[in-house]
Amino acid sequence: MTKTRLEAFSDGVIAILITIMVLELKVPHGDDWDALAPLWPVLSSYVLSFIYLGIYWNNHHHLLHLSSHINGTILWANLHLLFWLSLVPFVTAWMGENHFAALPTAVYGGVLLLAGFAYWILERAIIAAQGKDSKLDAAVGKDWKAVASTLLYASAIPLAFVHQWIADGIYVFVAMMWFIPDRRIEAKIAG
Amino acid sequence: MTKTRLEAFSDGVIAILITIMVLELKVPHGDDWDALAPLWPVLSSYVLSFIYLGIYWNNHHHLLHLSSHINGTILWANLHLLFWLSLVPFVTAWMGENHFAALPTAVYGGVLLLAGFAYWILERAIIAAQGKDSKLDAAVGKDWKAVASTLLYASAIPLAFVHQWIADGIYVFVAMMWFIPDRRIEAKIAG
Amino acid sequence: MTKTRLEAFSDGVIAILITIMVLELKVPHGDDWDALAPLWPVLSSYVLSFIYLGIYWNNHHHLLHLSSHINGTILWANLHLLFWLSLVPFVTAWMGENHFAALPTAVYGGVLLLAGFAYWILERAIIAAQGKDSKLDAAVGKDWKAVASTLLYASAIPLAFVHQWIADGIYVFVAMMWFIPDRRIEAKIAG
Amino acid sequence: MTKTRLEAFSDGVIAILITIMVLELKVPHGDDWDALAPLWPVLSSYVLSFIYLGIYWNNHHHLLHLSSHINGTILWANLHLLFWLSLVPFVTAWMGENHFAALPTAVYGGVLLLAGFAYWILERAIIAAQGKDSKLDAAVGKDWKAVASTLLYASAIPLAFVHQWIADGIYVFVAMMWFIPDRRIEAKIAG
Repeated sequence: MTKTRLEAFSDGVIAILITIMVLELKVPHGDDWDALAPLWPVLSSYVLSFIYLGIYWNNHHHLLHLSSHINGTILWANLHLLFWLSLVPFVTAWMGENHFAALPTAVYGGVLLLAGFAYWILERAIIAAQGKDSKLDAAVGKDWKAVASTLLYASAIPLAFVHQWIADGIYVFVAMMWFIPDRRIEAKIAG
Repeated sequence: MTKTRLEAFSDGVIAILITIMVLELKVPHGDDWDALAPLWPVLSSYVLSFIYLGIYWNNHHHLLHLSSHINGTILWANLHLLFWLSLVPFVTAWMGENHFAALPTAVYGGVLLLAGFAYWILERAIIAAQGKDSKLDAAVGKDWKAVASTLLYASAIPLAFVHQWIADGIYVFVAMMWFIPDRRIEAKIAG
Repeated sequence: MTKTRLEAFSDGVIAILITIMVLELKVPHGDDWDALAPLWPVLSSYVLSFIYLGIYWNNHHHLLHLSSHINGTILWANLHLLFWLSLVPFVTAWMGENHFAALPTAVYGGVLLLAGFAYWILERAIIAAQGKDSKLDAAVGKDWKAVASTLLYASAIPLAFVHQWIADGIYVFVAMMWFIPDRRIEAKIAG
Repeated sequence: MTKTRLEAFSDGVIAILITIMVLELKVPHGDDWDALAPLWPVLSSYVLSFIYLGIYWNNHHHLLHLSSHINGTILWANLHLLFWLSLVPFVTAWMGENHFAALPTAVYGGVLLLAGFAYWILERAIIAAQGKDSKLDAAVGKDWKAVASTLLYASAIPLAFVHQWIADGIYVFVAMMWFIPDRRIEAKIAG
């Protein structure tokens, strides 16, 4: 029961975040291509963040699937993750409307870094609750993907000031890396 | 469990999309009929898109009902469909505020075409996961309704530049064609 | 399964409608009572519509509880009800921002009338699906409350042009009449 | 069934409230730190309200967990709580945009006070429905935390006019006090 509500609440928040981002695609006043053209950076940043939130939803999904019971620490670790994800629409719009300028791109990376860190905390909280025979621990191990993502986000932030496209390229690369749902957990579920 | 969350997440996203569209019905400043009159095109495009999203929700519903288990490909095919649906409020508002002008009407058709294509991909992903005895495959067969819709949308896009009402008429016609929930699947469920 | 998704989708839409109305409470620029004062009509119309949507959620809840299986007609009758409810935030804001002027008050009543009518259609669709031993039919009978509400809304619309407070008084009266959840159905469930 | 829908609806409303607050973080026009700086008070008030809504969700969660059946009074007591919570985004934005000025800070406390009171009414309604062997009553007892919160909010309102930071400090203190999910109920569930 508790787990069901945690999942439902998280699904609700992520579903809302993924859809309110589209409100930043402001309806242009003209009815020709010139009116539509300035929307491309906003649309691009929307696509990137849609994929990131999709990844978080997918992985959150797998994570909870392997967790058996929920305690207060897990509830708050989950809300902490949702907090950082809730800032995604804001940084997405800021980055998009400023045509991927250096500072918004760096701040976008900062939010991804903190969301990634919050996800890792949630993972550890679930593993701690399961004790030493944790199925989740066995499935994710040292979680090199999480470690690699963290290092990549952390390097993207200063690199945004060298050139923003380096940072944006890193965000696209990390998204592709996670695009494939966590096969380790999937294998564990099937096995 | 997995299927339940996929349905719940999709329901959440579609429920939000169907309701945030109404935010484009900007509250007029006056309190007389003159203040309300300019809203008719926006209201008409809202009604059309409400019906389309209702159709997608209904059919998605039937589709998932016949699917047995969910894999990573289905998860992403579903998110891909939700992405195109998430652009519906934007193109609805753009078309409505420009009184169904040619380009917004064509772009509206483009989003419907891509959403229809994404739905077809999702259908194929579920059938592929079910293998050769797929209940869904048996129920939908070649899915002539999906094929016909695709051809109609694809023809509506250039026809919008001949006259927008031709394209809008096609959208209304396709909506009516789908209005009746997929009886083939309903029959299969009952049978 | 089908019924669960129908309930979940309806709950989602009503939950979103009840909360996006609050977005019309525009944050004032000043920080004193003078800045807050102009919000009272908007807040009053929000409270009234919050109660109406709460009533619809409660009664929808009881209605579905007594329905056994869902068909295509019920799905669309439900979407039809949700369509009229989706216009509630718009008419609420329009009425509130114009200090309950005659026309917005009459249009508000029109939306309530059509929502009430859509609810009645949904009720009949469920009863028709249940056949002659319908538990819902036995519970609601001729549904005098629905009939009375319809007559009251219908009379409120012209009376808004005599004086808006007559119409607003009728809306408050109907809300109070429904405030108590449908005891007939509750009794039926318990019995 | 009834309880499930009540939980789902409440989760939906709280999930939407927690995310629409972020829409008040208006995307700045510049792309430098100067553009971001004015957002700090809005962001701070967002963090505080995010935590409060998280606390309400957590405690609501525990509360419903111990409730066995739902009646009309509980449904309306729950909607009454959701009404006050629905005003949180408004008062959060008003307080944040006015840099925690005295009146908005006091009004924020007023909404917290009324939400706290509504929570207490809901708790009593559930206990009343359970009768004299109420598990919830045994778990929460006199609920000193609720009483203390009420007294603290009530004192924060006048103190906001002495100095707003006293009131803001009280809000942070109460949040910390509730941060730990209700161990009494958790113990009862486990026991």
